[in-house]
Amino acid sequence: MAPRRKKIYEGKAKVLYEGPEPGTLVQYFKDDATAFNAQKKATIEGKGVLNNRLSEYFMTGLTNIGVPNHFIRRLNMREQLIRQVEIVPLEVIVRNFAAGSISKRLGLEEGTPLPRPIVEYSYKNDALGDPLVPEEYIIAFGWANQQDLDDIVSLALRVNDFLSGVFYGVGIKLIDFKIEIGRVWDGDFMRLIVADEISPDSCRLWDIKTNQKLDKDVFRRDLGSLTDAYSEVARRLGVLPTNATNIKPTLIN
Amino acid sequence: MAPRRKKIYEGKAKVLYEGPEPGTLVQYFKDDATAFNAQKKATIEGKGVLNNRLSEYFMTGLTNIGVPNHFIRRLNMREQLIRQVEIVPLEVIVRNFAAGSISKRLGLEEGTPLPRPIVEYSYKNDALGDPLVPEEYIIAFGWANQQDLDDIVSLALRVNDFLSGVFYGVGIKLIDFKIEIGRVWDGDFMRLIVADEISPDSCRLWDIKTNQKLDKDVFRRDLGSLTDAYSEVARRLGVLPTNATNIKPTLIN
Repeated sequence: MAPRRKKIYEGKAKVLYEGPEPGTLVQYFKDDATAFNAQKKATIEGKGVLNNRLSEYFMTGLTNIGVPNHFIRRLNMREQLIRQVEIVPLEVIVRNFAAGSISKRLGLEEGTPLPRPIVEYSYKNDALGDPLVPEEYIIAFGWANQQDLDDIVSLALRVNDFLSGVFYGVGIKLIDFKIEIGRVWDGDFMRLIVADEISPDSCRLWDIKTNQKLDKDVFRRDLGSLTDAYSEVARRLGVLPTNATNIKPTLIN
Repeated sequence: MAPRRKKIYEGKAKVLYEGPEPGTLVQYFKDDATAFNAQKKATIEGKGVLNNRLSEYFMTGLTNIGVPNHFIRRLNMREQLIRQVEIVPLEVIVRNFAAGSISKRLGLEEGTPLPRPIVEYSYKNDALGDPLVPEEYIIAFGWANQQDLDDIVSLALRVNDFLSGVFYGVGIKLIDFKIEIGRVWDGDFMRLIVADEISPDSCRLWDIKTNQKLDKDVFRRDLGSLTDAYSEVARRLGVLPTNATNIKPTLIN
């Protein structure tokens, strides 16, 4: 029997395994959904399959326009091959409209357009609940330096322009999203690339006409079937075969 | 009888009329198609209607992400209200894949991916055939200064990221496109904004899977019905009512 491959890291929605070659990892998408720093939990059949596909789709699109990212190729229904990175311990959040924490913090109604896209950072630390941090903290504690942050903002705004376009094309408003950034080295030369995932787990997506939510808020706020919402996003983007209206019998392995 | 409104400018595919308020113009989309510096001409029934709608759609999307442009609102089937600008006498071309003049000039097969998006400029001058010009010429002749060009490149690359996303979402590859840039003043403060139009007249669009052309090359190269190609773009983007598979009876006024 082949030895079981080595688990590198297990998060709330994904597992990372050692990859087939040095500098690669296998990213496995679980069906687990969590919210409010894992105080709310559930298993959503098919979510991992959808997010694996959707993250492939968005990362491939970013590669096409020259935004560097960790995606190499999809391996199967739940796994993709990615570049191993040293993750920057920040959640990089880009907001186009107020929703979630900024609405609470500033007393803004959800859906209020922001004066311009706002890039903010949370310190990735579950014990602390991923707190919002100003740049000053990030630089003082050495999580990233000023040049890194300038590069991260450039990457984040390019991702925002591109994803805003993708969703606009299919009648969806990109309210906000979160990305993570990783460091890779070519010899001594360090580059920052987009890592983690891009999926309805990491974006807020509202239908342009009805404002219907098509993202993880459906789970956070008990607004219906999360699989239906994510399937609708995938269907509009042509990511699933058009006959896969119910993904359960056809796509779950 | 009301006096006929004043024509400001007539181009190959559009007419500009005086607008209802100072600082505005009415942009009328004709059905005329020209190519090869107007050596090839035809009238394509419905093209103006489609381009009016599509340019509205793309400019509105750019406004949503904060890319300033001349569009104010659509007035009717063939007309839109726009901001009056002082046009920079350049065609700003962004290329993601080789096609058209760069393919000829450099001997590159059409469809070859470029190492990165390339921004180039043609001097807008019909008598000269809109010749390619280096930045050096532009600055020397005073059509724009270095700061203008830096701002123009930033605008052009944001438009490229956004449009690449819009088309990616509906299974279309953005090969290249052309925009024009205009100057507007808020008091003494000059700003550059996107002007003219964004439509299949000004983009090269290939189906991602089949490489079928969905742009003006269909006309330039006699590849079939231009209206069908533009309607397909509009249909995928949800710009036309879904039952308008043949726009002639429903949309031409």
